[in-house]
Amino acid sequence: MADAKTLNDMFIDMLKDVYYAEKQILRTLPKMAKAAKSQELKAAFEKHRDETEGQIERLAQVFEIAGKAARGKTCDAILGIIEEGKAVMEDYAGSPAMDAGLLAAAQAVEHYEIARYGTLKAWAGQLGLKDAVGLLDQTLTEESKTDEALSKLAAGSVNESAMAKAA
Amino acid sequence: MADAKTLNDMFIDMLKDVYYAEKQILRTLPKMAKAAKSQELKAAFEKHRDETEGQIERLAQVFEIAGKAARGKTCDAILGIIEEGKAVMEDYAGSPAMDAGLLAAAQAVEHYEIARYGTLKAWAGQLGLKDAVGLLDQTLTEESKTDEALSKLAAGSVNESAMAKAA
Repeated sequence: MADAKTLNDMFIDMLKDVYYAEKQILRTLPKMAKAAKSQELKAAFEKHRDETEGQIERLAQVFEIAGKAARGKTCDAILGIIEEGKAVMEDYAGSPAMDAGLLAAAQAVEHYEIARYGTLKAWAGQLGLKDAVGLLDQTLTEESKTDEALSKLAAGSVNESAMAKAA
Repeated sequence: MADAKTLNDMFIDMLKDVYYAEKQILRTLPKMAKAAKSQELKAAFEKHRDETEGQIERLAQVFEIAGKAARGKTCDAILGIIEEGKAVMEDYAGSPAMDAGLLAAAQAVEHYEIARYGTLKAWAGQLGLKDAVGLLDQTLTEESKTDEALSKLAAGSVNESAMAKAA
Protein backbone atom coordinates (compact mmCIF):
# COMPACT_ATOMS: atom_id res chain seq x y z
CA MET A 1 0.00 0.00 0.00
CA ALA A 2 1.24 3.52 -0.79
CA ASP A 3 2.23 5.75 2.12
CA ALA A 4 -0.49 8.10 3.34
CA LYS A 5 -0.18 11.52 1.74
CA THR A 6 1.24 14.27 3.94
CA LEU A 7 0.84 18.00 4.48
CA ASN A 8 3.81 18.46 2.14
CA ASP A 9 1.94 16.68 -0.68
CA MET A 10 -1.07 18.87 0.01
CA PHE A 11 1.11 22.00 -0.08
CA ILE A 12 2.53 21.02 -3.49
CA ASP A 13 -0.98 20.16 -4.80
CA MET A 14 -2.25 23.57 -3.77
CA LEU A 15 0.79 25.35 -5.23
CA LYS A 16 -0.03 23.69 -8.58
CA ASP A 17 -3.69 24.72 -8.24
CA VAL A 18 -2.81 28.35 -7.55
CA TYR A 19 -0.12 28.41 -10.27
CA TYR A 20 -2.77 27.31 -12.78
CA ALA A 21 -5.29 29.80 -11.36
CA GLU A 22 -2.86 32.75 -11.64
CA LYS A 23 -2.13 31.89 -15.28
CA GLN A 24 -5.86 31.85 -16.02
CA ILE A 25 -6.26 35.20 -14.26
CA LEU A 26 -3.34 36.65 -16.27
CA ARG A 27 -5.21 35.74 -19.48
CA THR A 28 -8.58 37.06 -18.26
CA LEU A 29 -7.60 40.47 -16.84
CA PRO A 30 -6.91 42.12 -20.25
CA LYS A 31 -10.40 41.03 -21.39
CA MET A 32 -11.91 42.56 -18.26
CA ALA A 33 -9.89 45.78 -18.76
CA LYS A 34 -11.19 45.96 -22.33
CA ALA A 35 -14.80 45.44 -21.23
CA ALA A 36 -14.65 48.02 -18.40
CA LYS A 37 -16.17 51.44 -19.14
CA SER A 38 -14.65 53.33 -16.19
CA GLN A 39 -11.06 54.46 -16.74
CA GLU A 40 -10.29 53.83 -13.06
CA LEU A 41 -11.51 50.26 -13.33
CA LYS A 42 -9.56 49.67 -16.56
CA ALA A 43 -6.45 50.97 -14.80
CA ALA A 44 -7.08 48.75 -11.75
CA PHE A 45 -7.34 45.64 -13.95
CA GLU A 46 -4.21 46.59 -15.90
CA LYS A 47 -2.25 47.18 -12.69
CA HIS A 48 -3.36 43.85 -11.29
CA ARG A 49 -2.39 42.12 -14.54
CA ASP A 50 1.17 43.36 -14.01
CA GLU A 51 1.12 42.30 -10.35
CA THR A 52 -0.10 38.86 -11.39
CA GLU A 53 3.07 38.36 -13.47
CA GLY A 54 5.13 39.00 -10.35
CA GLN A 55 2.94 36.64 -8.32
CA ILE A 56 3.50 33.84 -10.84
CA GLU A 57 7.24 34.48 -10.59
CA ARG A 58 7.04 34.22 -6.77
CA LEU A 59 5.14 30.93 -7.04
CA ALA A 60 7.94 29.61 -9.28
CA GLN A 61 10.39 30.53 -6.50
CA VAL A 62 8.25 28.73 -3.91
CA PHE A 63 8.25 25.59 -6.09
CA GLU A 64 12.05 25.85 -6.18
CA ILE A 65 12.27 26.19 -2.38
CA ALA A 66 10.04 23.11 -2.07
CA GLY A 67 12.33 21.24 -4.50
CA LYS A 68 9.68 20.73 -7.18
CA ALA A 69 9.34 21.85 -10.81
CA ALA A 70 6.78 24.65 -11.27
CA ARG A 71 3.70 23.05 -12.82
CA GLY A 72 0.01 23.88 -12.90
CA LYS A 73 -2.96 21.58 -12.29
CA THR A 74 -6.49 22.35 -13.47
CA CYS A 75 -8.32 24.35 -10.80
CA ASP A 76 -12.10 23.88 -11.09
CA ALA A 77 -12.77 26.68 -8.63
CA ILE A 78 -11.07 29.44 -10.62
CA LEU A 79 -12.58 28.14 -13.86
CA GLY A 80 -16.04 28.43 -12.26
CA ILE A 81 -15.33 31.93 -10.96
CA ILE A 82 -13.99 33.09 -14.34
CA GLU A 83 -16.97 31.48 -16.11
CA GLU A 84 -19.30 33.67 -14.02
CA GLY A 85 -17.28 36.76 -15.01
CA LYS A 86 -17.58 35.80 -18.70
CA ALA A 87 -21.35 35.39 -18.30
CA VAL A 88 -21.50 38.98 -16.96
CA MET A 89 -19.49 40.26 -19.96
CA GLU A 90 -21.96 38.56 -22.32
CA ASP A 91 -25.25 39.20 -20.52
CA TYR A 92 -24.51 42.84 -19.67
CA ALA A 93 -22.81 43.98 -22.89
CA GLY A 94 -23.94 47.57 -23.41
CA SER A 95 -25.54 47.81 -19.96
CA PRO A 96 -24.57 50.61 -17.54
CA ALA A 97 -24.31 47.87 -14.88
CA MET A 98 -21.41 46.14 -16.71
CA ASP A 99 -18.67 47.71 -14.56
CA ALA A 100 -20.46 46.75 -11.33
CA GLY A 101 -20.54 43.14 -12.59
CA LEU A 102 -16.87 43.19 -13.57
CA LEU A 103 -15.98 44.52 -10.12
CA ALA A 104 -17.97 41.76 -8.46
CA ALA A 105 -16.26 39.11 -10.60
CA ALA A 106 -12.82 40.55 -9.79
CA GLN A 107 -13.59 40.56 -6.06
CA ALA A 108 -14.64 36.90 -6.20
CA VAL A 109 -11.26 36.16 -7.84
CA GLU A 110 -9.39 38.17 -5.19
CA HIS A 111 -11.16 36.39 -2.32
CA TYR A 112 -10.35 33.01 -3.84
CA GLU A 113 -6.70 34.02 -3.95
CA ILE A 114 -6.75 35.48 -0.43
CA ALA A 115 -8.11 32.15 0.89
CA ARG A 116 -5.50 30.13 -1.01
CA TYR A 117 -2.46 32.28 -0.19
CA GLY A 118 -3.54 32.39 3.47
CA THR A 119 -3.60 28.59 3.52
CA LEU A 120 -0.31 28.23 1.60
CA LYS A 121 1.43 30.68 3.94
CA ALA A 122 0.19 28.78 7.05
CA TRP A 123 1.28 25.43 5.62
CA ALA A 124 4.68 26.77 4.50
CA GLY A 125 5.23 27.90 8.11
CA GLN A 126 4.27 24.48 9.48
CA LEU A 127 6.58 22.80 6.96
CA GLY A 128 9.48 25.08 8.04
CA LEU A 129 9.80 26.74 4.59
CA LYS A 130 10.66 30.16 5.98
CA ASP A 131 11.61 31.83 2.67
CA ALA A 132 8.39 30.56 1.12
CA VAL A 133 6.39 32.16 3.96
CA GLY A 134 7.88 35.56 3.08
CA LEU A 135 7.13 35.21 -0.63
CA LEU A 136 3.57 34.00 -0.04
CA ASP A 137 2.98 36.79 2.44
CA GLN A 138 4.06 39.42 -0.11
CA THR A 139 1.46 38.13 -2.55
CA LEU A 140 -1.21 37.81 0.14
CA THR A 141 -0.65 41.49 1.02
CA GLU A 142 -0.93 42.50 -2.65
CA GLU A 143 -4.16 40.54 -3.11
CA SER A 144 -5.70 42.08 0.01
CA LYS A 145 -4.76 45.58 -1.18
CA THR A 146 -6.26 44.87 -4.61
CA ASP A 147 -9.49 43.73 -2.96
CA GLU A 148 -9.61 46.90 -0.85
CA ALA A 149 -9.02 49.08 -3.94
CA LEU A 150 -11.85 47.25 -5.75
CA SER A 151 -14.15 47.72 -2.74
CA LYS A 152 -13.47 51.46 -2.85
CA LEU A 153 -14.30 51.55 -6.57
CA ALA A 154 -17.45 49.49 -5.88
CA ALA A 155 -18.59 51.89 -3.17
CA GLY A 156 -17.75 54.92 -5.28
CA SER A 157 -17.97 56.16 -8.80
CA VAL A 158 -18.38 52.92 -10.72
CA ASN A 159 -21.67 51.83 -9.16
CA GLU A 160 -23.01 55.35 -8.85
CA SER A 161 -22.53 55.71 -12.56
CA ALA A 162 -24.37 52.40 -13.13
CA MET A 163 -27.30 53.76 -11.12
CA ALA A 164 -27.34 57.19 -12.75
CA LYS A 165 -27.41 55.76 -16.24
CA ALA A 166 -29.98 53.15 -15.23
CA ALA A 167 -32.32 55.75 -13.72
CA MET B 1 -34.49 45.40 -28.89
CA ALA B 2 -34.80 44.46 -25.23
CA ASP B 3 -33.96 47.13 -22.65
CA ALA B 4 -30.39 47.05 -21.36
CA LYS B 5 -30.14 45.08 -18.14
CA THR B 6 -29.78 47.10 -14.96
CA LEU B 7 -28.07 46.84 -11.58
CA ASN B 8 -31.37 45.51 -10.23
CA ASP B 9 -31.26 42.59 -12.70
CA MET B 10 -27.68 41.93 -11.66
CA PHE B 11 -28.67 41.99 -7.98
CA ILE B 12 -31.41 39.41 -8.58
CA ASP B 13 -29.04 37.24 -10.67
CA MET B 14 -26.49 37.23 -7.87
CA LEU B 15 -29.14 36.51 -5.22
CA LYS B 16 -30.09 33.41 -7.23
CA ASP B 17 -26.43 32.42 -7.54
CA VAL B 18 -25.82 32.73 -3.79
CA TYR B 19 -29.14 31.01 -2.91
CA TYR B 20 -28.01 28.03 -5.00
CA ALA B 21 -24.52 28.16 -3.48
CA GLU B 22 -25.85 28.14 0.12
CA LYS B 23 -28.02 25.11 -0.63
CA GLN B 24 -25.00 23.25 -2.01
CA ILE B 25 -23.00 24.23 1.07
CA LEU B 26 -25.81 23.01 3.35
CA ARG B 27 -25.58 19.59 1.70
CA THR B 28 -21.77 19.46 1.80
CA LEU B 29 -21.08 20.51 5.41
CA PRO B 30 -22.37 17.27 7.01
CA LYS B 31 -20.03 15.29 4.71
CA MET B 32 -17.12 17.49 5.78
CA ALA B 33 -18.08 17.12 9.47
CA LYS B 34 -18.13 13.34 9.02
CA ALA B 35 -14.70 13.35 7.30
CA ALA B 36 -13.05 15.60 9.93
CA LYS B 37 -10.88 13.87 12.56
CA SER B 38 -10.61 16.77 15.02
CA GLN B 39 -13.63 17.18 17.29
CA GLU B 40 -13.21 20.96 17.17
CA LEU B 41 -13.34 20.95 13.38
CA LYS B 42 -16.38 18.63 13.34
CA ALA B 43 -18.11 21.03 15.75
CA ALA B 44 -17.18 24.06 13.60
CA PHE B 45 -18.67 22.44 10.49
CA GLU B 46 -21.84 21.44 12.37
CA LYS B 47 -22.25 24.93 13.78
CA HIS B 48 -21.81 26.46 10.33
CA ARG B 49 -24.36 24.01 8.90
CA ASP B 50 -26.93 25.42 11.33
CA GLU B 51 -25.92 29.00 10.51
CA THR B 52 -26.29 28.23 6.80
CA GLU B 53 -29.97 27.34 7.35
CA GLY B 54 -30.51 30.81 8.83
CA GLN B 55 -28.59 32.40 5.95
CA ILE B 56 -30.84 30.69 3.40
CA GLU B 57 -33.86 31.98 5.32
CA ARG B 58 -32.42 35.53 5.20
CA LEU B 59 -31.87 35.25 1.43
CA ALA B 60 -35.54 34.26 1.06
CA GLN B 61 -36.45 37.46 2.94
CA VAL B 62 -34.21 39.52 0.62
CA PHE B 63 -35.95 38.00 -2.42
CA GLU B 64 -39.26 39.06 -0.86
CA ILE B 65 -38.01 42.62 -0.27
CA ALA B 66 -36.90 42.74 -3.92
CA GLY B 67 -40.35 41.49 -5.00
CA LYS B 68 -39.10 38.24 -6.52
CA ALA B 69 -39.73 34.55 -5.79
CA ALA B 70 -36.76 32.85 -4.08
CA ARG B 71 -35.07 30.71 -6.74
CA GLY B 72 -31.59 29.34 -7.25
CA LYS B 73 -29.46 29.37 -10.41
CA THR B 74 -26.52 27.05 -10.99
CA CYS B 75 -23.35 28.64 -9.62
CA ASP B 76 -20.25 27.26 -11.38
CA ALA B 77 -17.94 28.89 -8.88
CA ILE B 78 -19.27 27.10 -5.80
CA LEU B 79 -19.47 23.82 -7.72
CA GLY B 80 -15.77 24.19 -8.57
CA ILE B 81 -14.84 25.03 -4.99
CA ILE B 82 -16.86 22.10 -3.58
CA GLU B 83 -15.34 19.79 -6.23
CA GLU B 84 -11.88 20.65 -4.89
CA GLY B 85 -13.04 19.83 -1.36
CA LYS B 86 -14.36 16.46 -2.54
CA ALA B 87 -11.02 15.72 -4.22
CA VAL B 88 -9.29 16.33 -0.86
CA MET B 89 -11.71 13.94 0.89
CA GLU B 90 -10.91 11.25 -1.70
CA ASP B 91 -7.17 11.82 -2.16
CA TYR B 92 -6.38 12.23 1.55
CA ALA B 93 -8.67 9.56 3.05
CA GLY B 94 -6.72 8.10 5.98
CA SER B 95 -4.03 10.81 5.84
CA PRO B 96 -3.16 12.90 8.91
CA ALA B 97 -3.31 15.92 6.57
CA MET B 98 -7.05 15.39 5.89
CA ASP B 99 -8.23 17.99 8.42
CA ALA B 100 -5.83 20.62 7.06
CA GLY B 101 -7.31 20.01 3.60
CA LEU B 102 -10.88 20.23 4.87
CA LEU B 103 -10.05 23.51 6.61
CA ALA B 104 -8.57 24.92 3.40
CA ALA B 105 -11.66 23.89 1.42
CA ALA B 106 -13.96 25.47 4.01
CA GLN B 107 -11.97 28.71 3.94
CA ALA B 108 -12.24 28.88 0.14
CA VAL B 109 -16.03 28.52 0.55
CA GLU B 110 -16.13 31.25 3.22
CA HIS B 111 -14.12 33.67 1.09
CA TYR B 112 -16.42 33.06 -1.86
CA GLU B 113 -19.36 33.93 0.35
CA ILE B 114 -17.63 36.98 1.86
CA ALA B 115 -17.01 38.34 -1.66
CA ARG B 116 -20.62 37.70 -2.73
CA TYR B 117 -22.34 39.05 0.39
CA GLY B 118 -20.06 42.13 0.31
CA THR B 119 -21.17 42.80 -3.28
CA LEU B 120 -24.86 42.09 -2.56
CA LYS B 121 -24.81 44.41 0.46
CA ALA B 122 -23.23 47.25 -1.58
CA TRP B 123 -25.74 46.81 -4.41
CA ALA B 124 -28.72 46.60 -2.03
CA GLY B 125 -27.58 49.95 -0.61
CA GLN B 126 -27.32 51.50 -4.06
CA LEU B 127 -30.77 50.17 -4.95
CA GLY B 128 -32.23 51.69 -1.76
CA LEU B 129 -33.22 48.29 -0.27
CA LYS B 130 -32.42 49.28 3.31
CA ASP B 131 -33.90 46.20 5.02
CA ALA B 132 -32.00 43.95 2.64
CA VAL B 133 -28.74 45.72 3.58
CA GLY B 134 -29.31 44.80 7.23
CA LEU B 135 -30.05 41.14 6.46
CA LEU B 136 -27.06 40.79 4.12
CA ASP B 137 -24.81 42.47 6.65
CA GLN B 138 -25.84 39.97 9.35
CA THR B 139 -24.80 37.09 7.11
CA LEU B 140 -21.59 38.84 6.02
CA THR B 141 -20.63 39.21 9.70
CA GLU B 142 -21.36 35.52 10.36
CA GLU B 143 -19.28 34.42 7.38
CA SER B 144 -16.34 36.60 8.44
CA LYS B 145 -16.50 35.18 11.98
CA THR B 146 -16.60 31.64 10.62
CA ASP B 147 -13.52 32.36 8.50
CA GLU B 148 -11.68 33.75 11.54
CA ALA B 149 -12.61 30.70 13.61
CA LEU B 150 -11.32 28.42 10.84
CA SER B 151 -8.08 30.44 10.62
CA LYS B 152 -7.56 29.91 14.35
CA LEU B 153 -8.10 26.16 13.96
CA ALA B 154 -5.72 26.18 10.97
CA ALA B 155 -3.01 27.96 12.94
CA GLY B 156 -3.55 25.74 15.96
CA SER B 157 -4.18 22.16 16.86
CA VAL B 158 -5.50 20.80 13.58
CA ASN B 159 -2.40 21.41 11.49
CA GLU B 160 -0.01 20.67 14.35
CA SER B 161 -1.65 17.30 14.66
CA ALA B 162 -1.23 16.77 10.89
CA MET B 163 2.49 17.49 11.25
CA ALA B 164 2.98 15.38 14.38
CA LYS B 165 1.40 12.32 12.83
CA ALA B 166 3.24 12.89 9.56
CA ALA B 167 6.64 13.14 11.29
